[in-house]
Amino acid sequence: MSTSTITAISTPPGLGGIAVIRVSGNDAIKNCNEIFVPKKKSSSLLQQAAYTVSFGSIINRKNETVDDVLITVFRTPHSFTGEDVVEISCHGSLFVQQQILHVLLEQGCVLAQPGEFTQRAFLNGKMDLSQAEAVADLIASTSAASHRMALNQMRGGFSTELLKLRTQLLDFVSLVELELDFNEEDVEFADRSQLKSLASTIERLILKLSESFQVGNALKNGVPVALVGETNVGKSTLLNVLLNEDKAIVSDIHGTTRDVIEDSVNIDGVTFRFIDTAGIRDTKDKIENMGIERTYQKIEQAAIVLWILDCTQLSEHMEWLTDRIAKRAAGKKVILVFNKVDKITSDERDVLNQLFEQFEGERIYISARERINTDGLQKALIEAAQLPEINSGDVVVSNIRHYEALQNAHSAICRVIDGLDSGISGDFLSQDIRECMHFLGEITGQISNDEILGNIFGKFCIGK
Amino acid sequence: MSTSTITAISTPPGLGGIAVIRVSGNDAIKNCNEIFVPKKKSSSLLQQAAYTVSFGSIINRKNETVDDVLITVFRTPHSFTGEDVVEISCHGSLFVQQQILHVLLEQGCVLAQPGEFTQRAFLNGKMDLSQAEAVADLIASTSAASHRMALNQMRGGFSTELLKLRTQLLDFVSLVELELDFNEEDVEFADRSQLKSLASTIERLILKLSESFQVGNALKNGVPVALVGETNVGKSTLLNVLLNEDKAIVSDIHGTTRDVIEDSVNIDGVTFRFIDTAGIRDTKDKIENMGIERTYQKIEQAAIVLWILDCTQLSEHMEWLTDRIAKRAAGKKVILVFNKVDKITSDERDVLNQLFEQFEGERIYISARERINTDGLQKALIEAAQLPEINSGDVVVSNIRHYEALQNAHSAICRVIDGLDSGISGDFLSQDIRECMHFLGEITGQISNDEILGNIFGKFCIGK
Repeated sequence: MSTSTITAISTPPGLGGIAVIRVSGNDAIKNCNEIFVPKKKSSSLLQQAAYTVSFGSIINRKNETVDDVLITVFRTPHSFTGEDVVEISCHGSLFVQQQILHVLLEQGCVLAQPGEFTQRAFLNGKMDLSQAEAVADLIASTSAASHRMALNQMRGGFSTELLKLRTQLLDFVSLVELELDFNEEDVEFADRSQLKSLASTIERLILKLSESFQVGNALKNGVPVALVGETNVGKSTLLNVLLNEDKAIVSDIHGTTRDVIEDSVNIDGVTFRFIDTAGIRDTKDKIENMGIERTYQKIEQAAIVLWILDCTQLSEHMEWLTDRIAKRAAGKKVILVFNKVDKITSDERDVLNQLFEQFEGERIYISARERINTDGLQKALIEAAQLPEINSGDVVVSNIRHYEALQNAHSAICRVIDGLDSGISGDFLSQDIRECMHFLGEITGQISNDEILGNIFGKFCIGK
Repeated sequence: MSTSTITAISTPPGLGGIAVIRVSGNDAIKNCNEIFVPKKKSSSLLQQAAYTVSFGSIINRKNETVDDVLITVFRTPHSFTGEDVVEISCHGSLFVQQQILHVLLEQGCVLAQPGEFTQRAFLNGKMDLSQAEAVADLIASTSAASHRMALNQMRGGFSTELLKLRTQLLDFVSLVELELDFNEEDVEFADRSQLKSLASTIERLILKLSESFQVGNALKNGVPVALVGETNVGKSTLLNVLLNEDKAIVSDIHGTTRDVIEDSVNIDGVTFRFIDTAGIRDTKDKIENMGIERTYQKIEQAAIVLWILDCTQLSEHMEWLTDRIAKRAAGKKVILVFNKVDKITSDERDVLNQLFEQFEGERIYISARERINTDGLQKALIEAAQLPEINSGDVVVSNIRHYEALQNAHSAICRVIDGLDSGISGDFLSQDIRECMHFLGEITGQISNDEILGNIFGKFCIGK
């Protein structure tokens, strides 16, 4: 483990009222003391108590003042990284931020790699790997649900569950390996039927965690919704209506969210990710062309399909086409959205209703332009998403790395069960159990290597 | 003055490792205490000592955890605003930042207006108006010089100078007004020649400050440089070379500066602001057309003109045109830049030299593409800028509002001097001196009104 003292700007990049530069490592306090002139001449960072703040100036080598700052000191092990940590709160000028960083580098600090502060927290045992990953998820969270999942995971909910599983597996493998020590005597310490019952319990737990990924992924990355429809049926007007109503909530303070979650919308705490599709043409002879095929492929990626029709302009093939799309979207929720409802009479609406009587999915009549019943559509989307509410303490897997490890662990535990059924020898059994433990350990970081760590922390932002 | 408790996100907008939310006002500590659960159950924000930090969670009304945070407490009057201040350091997720803000608003805090924290610092006597303005300048500073000017001003260098002037004026006006009390007796307490000498000293000081604006403005907003040349002479290649070499310094950490100081370049601490001009055509008959006229106008705005020529393609009118531009740019520094020097022989270069022998400005031979002698051009730019180095303690006016007030103060003090010469009565004299004091007071804020304050603080970022 590196013993260098690292530094980085930890606040978001850009101009602001204030910025925070973080320093962590053995020399954090010493290095900062060299460049800090406290307002109270008698005080010194070296003597400053942990969890206190002092006011003063950062000076450079030429003894010129770089900025007036507030400095907070944390001392090992009671800090985020577990090391000595200094946080410098300076004016949020790009120039000032950079100058302070330069002065710190001159003192022998090195620029932190992305996620290096959190990585050190992990390596110093302040948190396990899944908790460290949750820090990044928390920062990236854009909805109440993804935020809660990340917070639960950061606070160790996930780790507790996995620790329980590993303890059970350890009990299990201990018994089996005890038998191996007495191999030649052919004893059986562990009742095979008890072992099998335990293995099944563990298998169900792993499966439950693994299955929660579908929900976790939807909550984290948004429920994928394919918007399908001919051109000019009002698809983009509808999308704008949906996006605006959300963005107003997310961006009323900063107005920057749009860049980050392009084409995503948060409705009542659930994130929906819209997948735009090429307009579908309504002529029968062209129906198999490539554009349509691509639309079908996009429907495959979606959990919900919004099939948008123009009430005033139904083509003759519409019913047949809708039926076809519904078939292609088997297993998905399909919502038929009749747009421009304000342009038709109630009689015409009755005709439409009869026409699509056979259609099994939900039918919604709206006007995107006039904002008629768009809240009804939102409700339908939330119902179709069928996402459970996440409460504090709920353990939901939302990380693809965890999901893959759980799938591997599940294969291993299934081999254990099969082995027990077929009466394979204890050493094979032990090997499968150890493999299952290995994959679970990868999640929390008991098992890790530089490549895994590099992949995880490389995706963090610098300064965290 | 408002007694509300204000709050805002003080760190730059966007995602980052951490973000800081600031709360200031009578109820700052009380409101934050309501939503904060300290890790150490026994402690409370209400009892937390000033300048200390505690770790814990922010909770919402449903008692759900919003985030794990660090909270710093400052108590009146020892804080930035002079009021009770709480700084909440949370995870830099947009969602988390916004949620904490919502929870604070629910507690009765109100969203801070742009610059409201600094405005409160001014209204509570923590700094004068010129110092408050320097806070915004410091945040916007992009070069060593603009940073130093702002820092000097923030630390009161400017105010000290003005305070000195106002004290002298007060002594002055007191003597004159004392005479007025004995008006009918026609006494002269103040020796008129002494008064005139004092007025001249003050006039020179105001003039000196006022004149420093030219330098201050160039340092703050960049030295305006007009790039003039035909199309295809390599103007944009040159601009890119100059910009890249700078941006590398400014943006190696964030990569965001480009948006902020579009087309500005910082060379050795001096900011240059490039004014692009329409390509000049070399046909004599079109020379008076509007495009050229606009180019001439842009030359007027510049302090330095870079007239870029293609060594390999001099038009027949070039010499005449160059001479004409040099005339139009009278009083400016004109640098003739011969681009593509790598494409000509030394003999051809001699010919060029002879051709432009009469030209008085500097001549530089470069190749922008091959980066030949571009550092020589940079040196020439810095020399041409002729900006003095700013040291700590130097008082330089860089704010247009200050400059205008100084000009008004100067007019008033000049009227005083004229009045002394023509022997006008003491009450007119007193009025002019008071007017001079008024304008100087506008700078530091002894004289201010809502409109002035609104103009100043409206330009601040939110959270400062």
